[in-house]
Amino acid sequence: MSKHAPMFISTDALLAHWQGHRRLTRRVIEVFPEDQMFAFSLGGMRTFGALANELLAMAAPMTHGMATLEWGGYAPPKAESKRAVLQAWDESTKKIEEWWPKIPPQRFQETLTSFGTYTGLGHWQILYVIDNEIHHRGQGYVYLRALGIEPPPFYER
Amino acid sequence: MSKHAPMFISTDALLAHWQGHRRLTRRVIEVFPEDQMFAFSLGGMRTFGALANELLAMAAPMTHGMATLEWGGYAPPKAESKRAVLQAWDESTKKIEEWWPKIPPQRFQETLTSFGTYTGLGHWQILYVIDNEIHHRGQGYVYLRALGIEPPPFYER
Repeated sequence: MSKHAPMFISTDALLAHWQGHRRLTRRVIEVFPEDQMFAFSLGGMRTFGALANELLAMAAPMTHGMATLEWGGYAPPKAESKRAVLQAWDESTKKIEEWWPKIPPQRFQETLTSFGTYTGLGHWQILYVIDNEIHHRGQGYVYLRALGIEPPPFYER
Repeated sequence: MSKHAPMFISTDALLAHWQGHRRLTRRVIEVFPEDQMFAFSLGGMRTFGALANELLAMAAPMTHGMATLEWGGYAPPKAESKRAVLQAWDESTKKIEEWWPKIPPQRFQETLTSFGTYTGLGHWQILYVIDNEIHHRGQGYVYLRALGIEPPPFYER
């Protein structure tokens, strides 16, 4: 792709967009009933706690890998309580903020393999992580509704 | 923002990313049982058919508005059957492809008000539409699982 292709969004704005989504996901975790987080599910799916652990295993580790090209250099501890999920979430948010500016900007337009497995352009790698968060958070909204709890508004970041 | 801010993703690549998501959402619509599309729901939420109509009311109309700054110039008909949803989906996909290149690239970095109501940067307007599609499609995945149907893989676009 041309280096002069018209820009849709800058690296700074994308980080701000992502962190907005992460604030919303944090609010969904916060309102999730503690005793249901690793117990409730629908249709044989994973619990919201298990989904949250998947999101945690992708977000900061992807950012670290994109910055260093070392994969597996950082992994948050697997959370087994709502409190541990929130703690890991906040730590990941800080790590993402710290590592993002260390990603060489051209890397977002280059092809790379993340975690030894997933090959694609740098922006694709990051968008996959964000989209996967939105996808599973949307599922968390259904779990909350089924539990009789009003989720936070989708448009508030 | 500087015109020379490092680019995360180009306008062309973002369109391709969006159309990939639209192909996945189309597959979710395709596997949804016709007799449940406007009937089944969980936790008092809207049916997947109603959610699909919301997505249709946002995607092509947003693209048209971004290209012309005329809001309400295009609205797909409200679908009341699975067949009508798929037909409107395919028509919207073509319209998006047609109108996207007509959006002046700098508009993605400018603040504008869409549909007379939503004020934000151009890239925010588009990302809201895409993120909302991922969010509601994720909810469709739960509906499918609850109906005993395997949804298409999230990573296939």
